Amino acid sequence: MTYVVSHNPTTGESVVTPYEETSPEVLDEMLSAALTRLSDLRGQTLDERAEMLRTCAAGLEGIGDLLVDVGGAETGLPEARLRSELARTVFQWRFLADVVRDGNLLEATIDHPYDSPMGPLPDLRRQMEPLGVVGVFGASNFPLAFSVPGGDTASALAAGCPVVVKAHPAHPRTSGLCAEAISRSLRSLGLDGAFHLIFGLEAGVRLVEHPHVAAVGFTGSLSAGRALFDRAQARPTPIPFYGELGSVNPVVVTLNAALARAEDIGRGFVSSVTLGAGQFCTKPGVLFVPAGPAGDELVRVATLAMTQWSGATMLSVSLRDRYLEERHVRGAATLAESLAPDTSAGAMGVLLGVRAAELGPRDIDELTRECFGALGIIVRYDTVDERARILDLLEPALTFTVHAEVDDPEGPSLLSYAATRAGRVLVNGWPTGVGVSWSMQHGGPYPAATSAAHTSVGGASLRRWLRPVTYQNVPSPWLPLALRDENPWGVTRRVDGVQQPGARRGTRL
Amino acid sequence: MTYVVSHNPTTGESVVTPYEETSPEVLDEMLSAALTRLSDLRGQTLDERAEMLRTCAAGLEGIGDLLVDVGGAETGLPEARLRSELARTVFQWRFLADVVRDGNLLEATIDHPYDSPMGPLPDLRRQMEPLGVVGVFGASNFPLAFSVPGGDTASALAAGCPVVVKAHPAHPRTSGLCAEAISRSLRSLGLDGAFHLIFGLEAGVRLVEHPHVAAVGFTGSLSAGRALFDRAQARPTPIPFYGELGSVNPVVVTLNAALARAEDIGRGFVSSVTLGAGQFCTKPGVLFVPAGPAGDELVRVATLAMTQWSGATMLSVSLRDRYLEERHVRGAATLAESLAPDTSAGAMGVLLGVRAAELGPRDIDELTRECFGALGIIVRYDTVDERARILDLLEPALTFTVHAEVDDPEGPSLLSYAATRAGRVLVNGWPTGVGVSWSMQHGGPYPAATSAAHTSVGGASLRRWLRPVTYQNVPSPWLPLALRDENPWGVTRRVDGVQQPGARRGTRL
Repeated sequence: MTYVVSHNPTTGESVVTPYEETSPEVLDEMLSAALTRLSDLRGQTLDERAEMLRTCAAGLEGIGDLLVDVGGAETGLPEARLRSELARTVFQWRFLADVVRDGNLLEATIDHPYDSPMGPLPDLRRQMEPLGVVGVFGASNFPLAFSVPGGDTASALAAGCPVVVKAHPAHPRTSGLCAEAISRSLRSLGLDGAFHLIFGLEAGVRLVEHPHVAAVGFTGSLSAGRALFDRAQARPTPIPFYGELGSVNPVVVTLNAALARAEDIGRGFVSSVTLGAGQFCTKPGVLFVPAGPAGDELVRVATLAMTQWSGATMLSVSLRDRYLEERHVRGAATLAESLAPDTSAGAMGVLLGVRAAELGPRDIDELTRECFGALGIIVRYDTVDERARILDLLEPALTFTVHAEVDDPEGPSLLSYAATRAGRVLVNGWPTGVGVSWSMQHGGPYPAATSAAHTSVGGASLRRWLRPVTYQNVPSPWLPLALRDENPWGVTRRVDGVQQPGARRGTRL
Repeated sequence: MTYVVSHNPTTGESVVTPYEETSPEVLDEMLSAALTRLSDLRGQTLDERAEMLRTCAAGLEGIGDLLVDVGGAETGLPEARLRSELARTVFQWRFLADVVRDGNLLEATIDHPYDSPMGPLPDLRRQMEPLGVVGVFGASNFPLAFSVPGGDTASALAAGCPVVVKAHPAHPRTSGLCAEAISRSLRSLGLDGAFHLIFGLEAGVRLVEHPHVAAVGFTGSLSAGRALFDRAQARPTPIPFYGELGSVNPVVVTLNAALARAEDIGRGFVSSVTLGAGQFCTKPGVLFVPAGPAGDELVRVATLAMTQWSGATMLSVSLRDRYLEERHVRGAATLAESLAPDTSAGAMGVLLGVRAAELGPRDIDELTRECFGALGIIVRYDTVDERARILDLLEPALTFTVHAEVDDPEGPSLLSYAATRAGRVLVNGWPTGVGVSWSMQHGGPYPAATSAAHTSVGGASLRRWLRPVTYQNVPSPWLPLALRDENPWGVTRRVDGVQQPGARRGTRL
């Protein structure tokens, strides 16, 4: 048996955990149990489903102190950060409970028979149903919010799909504790078997290739994500693979913005780059700053801010070592370097600078490559055309930020362009911090995500795990409840082409 | 230059068309032109977009007689069928115009800033935007409704995506005429370049692999669809490939239904199997009939009906030849064979029969393989368990039909099972005939379609070509119109968690 080992990136200590790498036989058993649970989840009312999510939220909340403790030891993240991540994680389950209760996720649609211009049409009724068992790969950088109890797990259960999560090796004990809390919560509702945790790289690959798995959610690196995506697509029965792969998130500062707010922007940039030791997929990787005195001042402030930063402990020694290798970018000069804490995985922050005019396509490839860690690159541009040329060469991103004044003549066209290059577009803010809300989009065109049409955060994140079914001429007593004429659940529906608001109208926590 | 040749499956005659196979250079030009048009389509109001679709509908209607004429010569389909397909096709454009006008496709969502349980959240607003240039591969069996002017083209334009269609070699002249009508309609609105038609297998493969193409819609065979799907996923930037690949569509007759309606069901089955010479992706391929006298009577009626059928001309000689090869299924006996018309691609209908108890897994593989042509297979079952065993071994399908009585004790559980195995579930009807409506789902779990979460027909077909964009803290004058507080378009939106019906409430043509 191979027991999983947990490492402390602050002290360098290692602990053998009670968890074993999952064998093929155990994985088979888990997936069979999960598949059996599918029909139970499918049979839930909206309120039962929501109650299930709220029970899990309470279960996680109940071990909050322990999670912060163990999570801190495994990730080196400070307590305040983990407390706020826990709050976010628990909120996400409750928010998704509200999304379920709202009922709009069913997209209930009814067309009574009629003589249409294409001829007589039968009785047709459509709703969304759970896709099947979902496999989840959590990320290292959010041991709670994007890991075992994260959005992929919560949204898949919210959609009525059983879940099998592959634990990230960077925080096995945290993963195990979260899994126990979720399993205990489900068991209290008679739903044990709807959730499982597995360990080990090989088990993860098997999960993606297993015939019982209907879809996969993944948060992590481009290379690992693409490798698993390729396996998911090469299966005899290909399955959706929703990978959120991170990105370099460009920030454009217009000349007017630099003139008006050089200091704020310079300081804000470094603060966003260094947040979470730069280990956020929404880290603003490249800042476009105009040439001239206002831009010079912005860079001066940013340089000072980076120099004054204290550095941070990264999530693991191997991530830190990779960061140190990748911090050098062709053609860029080091503008500033912070201190690094004296911990096992401690790392400094780095600010690089480069002139747009000097950048060739090969250099831009390097700029485009996401660097996990507190590295920020400032690109100085002389003209808007020069800036546009480089922006066009960058890969699409999760986010695209514009710093501009409200009366900036560049504003509207920059915004419109930004929306073609990213899933989320910001004005005069910073992309780190992804709110959980009905309106959130976390994703973007490849390589930011493997599917631009979906989000891994927010009210629409459930849609990844649903598929439509149409019922034709089905007698009312055999119809799903949301599709019966009398609308017993009171959901909003489209009936004979017309939207009909139901009793459930949605809420905001 | 290689000119494309058109074949007449009735007479066997061939005609050289004025169309050349599309060269890589010409394809590049077309795709560049299409990409340029993306921002124009993106900038349309809902009403302008709808007007564009209605203009195309009128353009196609205007050459209706010509289309029926040329389409008939190229496909062997009778005039009445082509007239009804034309009506369906034109209706589809107008229906999608209504879907656009309704505005719900935008999924407009607004969250004003507030102090949430996860902390303060910024102003977040989300809507769906066009994905990019769409490549379309039409089918041979519907030269209008699922080909050049079909649902993929219409829904992609409805979503604001320029389209490049690869003409199906079975009807190049029909394709060319349709393309000219669409191009002319778009040109009249100043939108030339938003639609292109290409010819040739190589050009089709290049289309799927071209960096300017953001998604592909495909209707056709499993083998061709999977090959193109694999190429789409293997690209440096993978793109969604929405393939509707057809299926064997099981029909289950319960004992009670056989007792009550043996004659109706027997006759209805043959009528549905032979419709369009059995060249429908929704053809009911396998009929499960109970053992015993009622089932015997059903089979007797079906056998007689098939014997009395006149046969039909298939879409091409090569399809007919493949049909003749595939009409033999291991372990099945020929129950009936119809006449075949004396045309170049004429073919007979065939009814095969087999006992469930005698079917092993390998035989079921053959049953599962879709046979394009007027072949129906009747499986006689002794027990419900035996029937369930075989149903579980069948691949998922586009449709699953149940013939049962309203008080049938089997009804509810059969229906519930059916919904896990297909995209559309029918009771006491036949799956051929796919209504265009808000509630239609045409698709299903693989191999019925490459994406179970989407439909190629109906109101939701647009969603394949859309992606969400979230706007964070964007000043109102820079926001897309549907996301401004004042709601100038009057669309239904979710605001601060609550669904707010707009002035646009949907319609039914």
